Amino acid sequence: MLNENKNTGQDTVLLMSEIGGKARKAARPLAVASAERKHAALVAMASAITRREQEILIANALDMVNGEEAGLSAAMLDRLKLDTQRIRAIADGIRAIADLRDPVGDVIAEWDRPNGLHIERVRTPLGVIGVIYESRPNVTADAGALCLKAGNAVILRGGSDSLNSSRAIHACLVEGLEAAGLPRDAIQLVPVSDRAAVGEMLKGLGGNVDVIIPRGGRSLVERVQTEARVPVFAHLEGICHLYVDKSANLDMAAKLAVNAKMRRTGICGAAETLLVDRAVAETHLVPVLEALRDAGCAIRADDEVRSIFNDAAPASEEDWATEYLDAIISVKLVDGVAGAVAHIETYSSHHTEAIVAEDVAAVEMFFNEIDSAILLHNASTQFADGGEFGMGAEIGIATGKMHARGPVGVEQLTSFKYRVHGAGQMRP
Amino acid sequence: MLNENKNTGQDTVLLMSEIGGKARKAARPLAVASAERKHAALVAMASAITRREQEILIANALDMVNGEEAGLSAAMLDRLKLDTQRIRAIADGIRAIADLRDPVGDVIAEWDRPNGLHIERVRTPLGVIGVIYESRPNVTADAGALCLKAGNAVILRGGSDSLNSSRAIHACLVEGLEAAGLPRDAIQLVPVSDRAAVGEMLKGLGGNVDVIIPRGGRSLVERVQTEARVPVFAHLEGICHLYVDKSANLDMAAKLAVNAKMRRTGICGAAETLLVDRAVAETHLVPVLEALRDAGCAIRADDEVRSIFNDAAPASEEDWATEYLDAIISVKLVDGVAGAVAHIETYSSHHTEAIVAEDVAAVEMFFNEIDSAILLHNASTQFADGGEFGMGAEIGIATGKMHARGPVGVEQLTSFKYRVHGAGQMRP
Repeated sequence: MLNENKNTGQDTVLLMSEIGGKARKAARPLAVASAERKHAALVAMASAITRREQEILIANALDMVNGEEAGLSAAMLDRLKLDTQRIRAIADGIRAIADLRDPVGDVIAEWDRPNGLHIERVRTPLGVIGVIYESRPNVTADAGALCLKAGNAVILRGGSDSLNSSRAIHACLVEGLEAAGLPRDAIQLVPVSDRAAVGEMLKGLGGNVDVIIPRGGRSLVERVQTEARVPVFAHLEGICHLYVDKSANLDMAAKLAVNAKMRRTGICGAAETLLVDRAVAETHLVPVLEALRDAGCAIRADDEVRSIFNDAAPASEEDWATEYLDAIISVKLVDGVAGAVAHIETYSSHHTEAIVAEDVAAVEMFFNEIDSAILLHNASTQFADGGEFGMGAEIGIATGKMHARGPVGVEQLTSFKYRVHGAGQMRP
Repeated sequence: MLNENKNTGQDTVLLMSEIGGKARKAARPLAVASAERKHAALVAMASAITRREQEILIANALDMVNGEEAGLSAAMLDRLKLDTQRIRAIADGIRAIADLRDPVGDVIAEWDRPNGLHIERVRTPLGVIGVIYESRPNVTADAGALCLKAGNAVILRGGSDSLNSSRAIHACLVEGLEAAGLPRDAIQLVPVSDRAAVGEMLKGLGGNVDVIIPRGGRSLVERVQTEARVPVFAHLEGICHLYVDKSANLDMAAKLAVNAKMRRTGICGAAETLLVDRAVAETHLVPVLEALRDAGCAIRADDEVRSIFNDAAPASEEDWATEYLDAIISVKLVDGVAGAVAHIETYSSHHTEAIVAEDVAAVEMFFNEIDSAILLHNASTQFADGGEFGMGAEIGIATGKMHARGPVGVEQLTSFKYRVHGAGQMRP
């Protein structure tokens, strides 16, 4: 760890307060910046990333050396590492965000009143967004670009392990802002790595942070949800369910179970629990579990399931509430949709649930009675993703019910205001 | 004050925790209740209010006696008082809410993906809403009915002065719920009047309150905004501006100034500051100020205005940041729209601002650059109201930017979820 990364608590409070004030000040010109200007800034950022590749690689090498010395795991070092291909992907990601439709100024709704007033509800930026993330340096670029596209100022607080890489990437973002004549404080990177900086952000920097978005593991999100005094867009975990109804197509059920669980086991949309309708225990359970087992998945099941399929370990109560993020699935028989709904409403983290069924009434019941952000019918839970939803890019998935829910894309990073046109109307 | 209204702190913590748990439990059946059932409950509530008028009047008489003994002001006693006409208005208000379109289940957006997935964003209830209000007993009915219409459970905490009246009204609401087969805990009235109950609600009752809506004066809203650990829909104050541009129609400007300020001086949408374009100081200032003065408005102005119109008291710095809620207006000359924007962005509470202008470019600049919930062109600021916006009923005006902004009607009391239909799609 470099000495310059360290800072005393009091210094951090002052520094963060200053960063908050600068962000709020930058938010105003940003909110009225034209779509063209924001697009130009993003394109210039991507060019700077490409042009300054060597600089970024050198900074990243320093982080890698520090990380190895600090004994980071192989998985963490892999998340940290940049190469030419990953840097190209970062630049391409920024260009893709540049090419999204600018949401600011969109008329979301409009109507006329009997007295002749014409009312429009128009999208505006949210203001200042705080993003707190761990060691992936690409989040610096993704989050900075997406917040800018929606006209927001952003304060980025990356993990200490990636601070040098993030600084190098951040320098490219600032170059893009300045090339387009936008304030450099529109995207600020917290230059210190102590935990006090996070604490200050969670307190809202004296009203200068409008929303916090944590990107990271359970411990980070838990800290944010406990300490934050401003709204948070996040999910604590993704305990996602796949329910196979008695009306399911068996072949489809087996394929979807494998995809939902095994395509990538470490993402939040991966299925963690398989529920099978007791009515088809004899016909559907074994083929679906065999497909999972053959794909390399370990199975933990209740006694009833194990009496039918014996290649399964026993599941404990804890399993139903566990996000494995691994090639493990918990399995249970339930009494139809009502049983699935009851289990899911008890154990789900309200992220994403899927039903495999041909019976429209079963699907309707599942969709109506489960209160999760995303419900899927005859599709893999792994579609829980802003890109797959057609949002172009996302900054995360939210399971809260205020403002944003599900994938948080550029539109979810906006607010709105009312514009009312009259011709001299007075209120009677 | 009756003894039964008193309670010790620890009892209150337990009581409130129990209320929170009951509300969360009621929220689920409510969320899936049909539009017809909610409509039937609301109609039955209105009938019960009408039928049980005597009971309500007796309870209210008790509150009035207690209020007089406690030395409440005439204005507070007037807010507290019910009579046949006011009770009829309460019942009519519930019927009007019953007749609003049910927002739950509305498809807000839908689209197809290239892989054939069909995605719908569908309105759902928010969950549990906590409403904290002062002595107006009608809020018990309005807030209870509006939250129910949107499928939410609600915890109502009215002022101690109106507790007997609120209980009588609440009994009618519960009668309506039960008549329609909905859980009686869908609308709960906090039966104690100590401040600890409010503190518990603001802490969120162990995750069982999703949003708090305060209805009351500045001290209540300030306490809520300081202490709340859950989202709040509210405005602290309504420091609303009327700007008269050099392109304004003079006659319209004078009429709108009088309406914006004087129609009702005590509402949050009343104008508090008049800004006049310096370019038309000679022609527009005096006629507009004369109209205000003749309507009974006291004028506080800066030296420049007073040198032109001498029937004005001097304005201090504090005046620009004051919500008078009275027949007083502060007046200042500014340099065109840019000057108006700068003043408003400094002093406004971001509630409602209006411009009087014929110049479209001036209006566009005013609308773009001011970050307030409601912006009006050639119309009175007093239109800042959910009813006037065509929302049917509102529970208040929000100046925050998360989730709800401007009038909070039935739609603003909802969240959404995604319903995705596929045909076996697996994520590649």
